[in-house]
Amino acid sequence: MRQKRLGRQTVALERPPAVLAFANVGGKHEGEGPLREYFDELSQDSFFGEKTWEKAESAMQKRALRRALGRAGLEAEDLDRVYAGDLLNQCIGSSFGLREFGIPFYGLYGACSTMGESLALAAMAIDGGFSDRCAALTSSHFCTAERQYRTPMPYGCQRAPTAQWTATAAGCTILVRGDLAPSGCPGPWITHVTCGKIVDKGIRDPANMGAAMAPAAYDTLRAFFRETETKPSDYDGIFTGDLGALGHEIVREFFARDGVDLGDRFQDCGLLLYDRDRQDMHMGGSGCGCSASVFNGYLLERLRRGELRRIVFAPTGALLSPTSSFQGESVPGICHAVCLTTVFR
Amino acid sequence: MRQKRLGRQTVALERPPAVLAFANVGGKHEGEGPLREYFDELSQDSFFGEKTWEKAESAMQKRALRRALGRAGLEAEDLDRVYAGDLLNQCIGSSFGLREFGIPFYGLYGACSTMGESLALAAMAIDGGFSDRCAALTSSHFCTAERQYRTPMPYGCQRAPTAQWTATAAGCTILVRGDLAPSGCPGPWITHVTCGKIVDKGIRDPANMGAAMAPAAYDTLRAFFRETETKPSDYDGIFTGDLGALGHEIVREFFARDGVDLGDRFQDCGLLLYDRDRQDMHMGGSGCGCSASVFNGYLLERLRRGELRRIVFAPTGALLSPTSSFQGESVPGICHAVCLTTVFR
Repeated sequence: MRQKRLGRQTVALERPPAVLAFANVGGKHEGEGPLREYFDELSQDSFFGEKTWEKAESAMQKRALRRALGRAGLEAEDLDRVYAGDLLNQCIGSSFGLREFGIPFYGLYGACSTMGESLALAAMAIDGGFSDRCAALTSSHFCTAERQYRTPMPYGCQRAPTAQWTATAAGCTILVRGDLAPSGCPGPWITHVTCGKIVDKGIRDPANMGAAMAPAAYDTLRAFFRETETKPSDYDGIFTGDLGALGHEIVREFFARDGVDLGDRFQDCGLLLYDRDRQDMHMGGSGCGCSASVFNGYLLERLRRGELRRIVFAPTGALLSPTSSFQGESVPGICHAVCLTTVFR
Repeated sequence: MRQKRLGRQTVALERPPAVLAFANVGGKHEGEGPLREYFDELSQDSFFGEKTWEKAESAMQKRALRRALGRAGLEAEDLDRVYAGDLLNQCIGSSFGLREFGIPFYGLYGACSTMGESLALAAMAIDGGFSDRCAALTSSHFCTAERQYRTPMPYGCQRAPTAQWTATAAGCTILVRGDLAPSGCPGPWITHVTCGKIVDKGIRDPANMGAAMAPAAYDTLRAFFRETETKPSDYDGIFTGDLGALGHEIVREFFARDGVDLGDRFQDCGLLLYDRDRQDMHMGGSGCGCSASVFNGYLLERLRRGELRRIVFAPTGALLSPTSSFQGESVPGICHAVCLTTVFR
């Protein structure tokens, strides 16, 4: 067997799975941001026609999956796995969103890194010969996340200056075994997967997720470059998930201390999704749906158009709960990376 | 490539990974039950020396992992992945339990099916060539689960007759690539994995998890037998996770309607863990830690002793949250199965 393991954390896929189709769904604020044209569906109604915000979040997952299936020309029965998760307690966004589809399901929890984790596990399932067609799916909703992690919306609490804005959005990618992709499939293909470690540098402020997650992003990206023996300039873009302005700057500085200039190619989905000058998003976007919707729209579109040819997508997650913060705990972070390309060396 | 996919849900592993070592940890009640001698560690202190029950649950995961590593003669650095999850909001049992180990981590949420899901994903990671040595790990704690899903312990609420008792326990399995197992490794080996679908038959009573999960267990087990072209009598035991007395009886009846007598070989970890005549556990044990501790003790010991030669381990999960129940939702179930053997045909 060819060596797939490049190191402890990184795997090179032998038969890179192709992105067959993708879709994203967003809310009002996502539609007012600079990526408006990259959304498949935008809703002015934060309830998405449902009675509660939790049901709205499940509705977003359903819609993202349905749209991705439609664009792939597939039915739910054609998928053999779905890898999904979300931020809600007991991941009900996914379980209630996916309930009616009858697709074999592995539930994940990677906080806001879930889009990276789901893509990684789906890609390995295909490369390993266990699946032909998989979906990777996640979501977040501003109102469910605020109720969950902070205070119910009607309290009208003031946000801290370091706070980020949980995106109301969902994104879904459908991956297919390379040799089953239709001829002319524009990809991209997932070539590498790096599994993150839990990194906790002792940040205790749950309103400063960017600082809490930055060390994990640095750790995973460093492992990715080391184990693939590449450098940042080998990629057209390196996109973290939702570090926001502060966390993003911390990662840039960590690399600078190592003598590595990440340059303009280092970007963050949380900074791309909103216009921070016009929209009141403080440090930028966050939530599973932030990186999921930016990836399953802006990033994949640009890869397909040839504007990007090889990228690293590295969503980060903060593995806290309100209970852990009440009990005086710090905020552990994690970051899962995948490498996608439309060109093979 | 040899066909690994036997059907939409079931995979036959080409190079079955071996169980290298395992360990479990339990609380007071688990030590008073019939499986007492199959525990590596039993604590009279529900806090496991920590200040809160949530921290106690993390401590159980740490201890189970440390003991399993010790029995395998490995250090944390020797593992290339850990697949883990638990029942707590945002899975903090796992993230805080695993934080100090520095092992690349994929977080899962399968409710009480998590031991099955983690074994399945770890086994496929090894068979697919992505990992050499993985840990699969999960836990539950009676006091954290009661606070989480029902009412805080000090309320002293009366339990419904259909209620089950969340086990205070954790279990950890270390899997290794078959050709890296030491000579004379007694196994067992994981040969098959069946991924469950979400099944929801409309049960709305969160105090009747057994009935809610039974249809999922039936669905996954039926898929397993159909896709492997085997029948229940081909196995020495079929062990569901925590259906309890009611759910277990429902699954038996579903199979009976199909003309299949599951017989005595059909058992449930929730019925094995406690003595329902002497211990006040109502329908039996539940929680991720229930099937995890029965598997990583009683079941694996009996396989190693030759008392069992081929089993199906099929933990079930109820994918609800208190919020979903408050919002009038039913309780979706899921079941993930793995097949283990010490003999190869």
